[in-house]
Amino acid sequence: MYKSSFRKRLQSACSWFQKSFWRTGAVKNQAISLEYQAARRYTTRNRPIGPLERIIMRQHGPWGILASTEVYRDPWIRLVKDDVVRPDGQPGTYCVAHLKPGVSVLALDEQQNAYLTEEFHYGVARTTLETASGGIDSGETPLVAAKRELHEELGVTARKWTDLGTVDPFTANVVSPTQLFLAQDLSFGKPQPEGSELIRCLKVPFADVVKMAMDGRISHAPSVALVLKVGRLLEC
Amino acid sequence: MYKSSFRKRLQSACSWFQKSFWRTGAVKNQAISLEYQAARRYTTRNRPIGPLERIIMRQHGPWGILASTEVYRDPWIRLVKDDVVRPDGQPGTYCVAHLKPGVSVLALDEQQNAYLTEEFHYGVARTTLETASGGIDSGETPLVAAKRELHEELGVTARKWTDLGTVDPFTANVVSPTQLFLAQDLSFGKPQPEGSELIRCLKVPFADVVKMAMDGRISHAPSVALVLKVGRLLEC
Repeated sequence: MYKSSFRKRLQSACSWFQKSFWRTGAVKNQAISLEYQAARRYTTRNRPIGPLERIIMRQHGPWGILASTEVYRDPWIRLVKDDVVRPDGQPGTYCVAHLKPGVSVLALDEQQNAYLTEEFHYGVARTTLETASGGIDSGETPLVAAKRELHEELGVTARKWTDLGTVDPFTANVVSPTQLFLAQDLSFGKPQPEGSELIRCLKVPFADVVKMAMDGRISHAPSVALVLKVGRLLEC
Repeated sequence: MYKSSFRKRLQSACSWFQKSFWRTGAVKNQAISLEYQAARRYTTRNRPIGPLERIIMRQHGPWGILASTEVYRDPWIRLVKDDVVRPDGQPGTYCVAHLKPGVSVLALDEQQNAYLTEEFHYGVARTTLETASGGIDSGETPLVAAKRELHEELGVTARKWTDLGTVDPFTANVVSPTQLFLAQDLSFGKPQPEGSELIRCLKVPFADVVKMAMDGRISHAPSVALVLKVGRLLEC
């Protein structure tokens, strides 16, 4: 009983100490406290985890986190490397890329035509067909971001919105939940792409869009999930 | 005519020079050539792109890449930052995370039961339901990796395999194509999870798995895409 309470206090003290320093910005991309450095020495030397590490370790499911270091950050991507104790008790490292949460929107008109984007995507280095997709800006709700992206990329505004849930493109090494929307009752304006975007709008009968998702012509996973979800809902 | 030929020769010389140095490993995580350094100065100073940069620039769709720097690398994730000329001609940077290509496998028995994994996933920091998924090891074909993952995670071997195409969990900032498979005609053994894996196998009627993909209980995008693709194929 006493031991557990002592451990909790020490943990909360460590956590306060760490947070305060992060907040003040005194130390930015470095794990700072002496305990953390000790822990890092242990993990890098591949030694078994000692009693001090057990105390300062932050539990993360079956994993223990001894130290977190921000390896890289820009407005789109943040890479964090953790020194960890694996579920089997062995030391190791685990690196996670954090991206902005995102939205994907399928715009569907009354004649069951869908509106897709055709755009060169930097990562996969080819032109892909996708539903209108983008990141949620700070302060935006997913719905506001969805409305903005649909207008920016396709010049479309919609009066009827259906939330089709969230998908996680990855669950292990990348964090970027993507909320899916069906947009109906459309009106059309002029697209306003950002400087880095060259987007062509494609009007395709929805039945063909489903075929494209099935045969791989649409490969962007959130778009595939969204199209097939809508296909099931509309039974087409 | 002469100008274009000269430009091409210069580009190929730059490219050869750069590749040779990368290959020898003399310079690892740094952009090396003098031209590259000049280019980086231009982009970081936010100046317009000059004639020298236009020559050494490598075209990447509507983008131009002036220099590439590997920011981070471990066996699971590699982060590369490019100094670029955006499609609108402005200088900038673009960072892409490269993950191992992966596979996702839906195992389905003759009574239309699916076998899912229930595992804590580090990135999203919660226990998720997924189809058997993992990375393709070096030298493996996607099918070999799929067979290995299915056996390691669920202890299942299958005699009938259907390739359901590839999805890209992301297309812009992350590269990690994931190949989808349906595995049938199953036999069951003992799972052999890796040291960092604590996996529970769930046997669920396939009709319920489809409901889980629809209502968000399954959120892993490749799993959702795979389940809904199989749902359409089997018409259930």
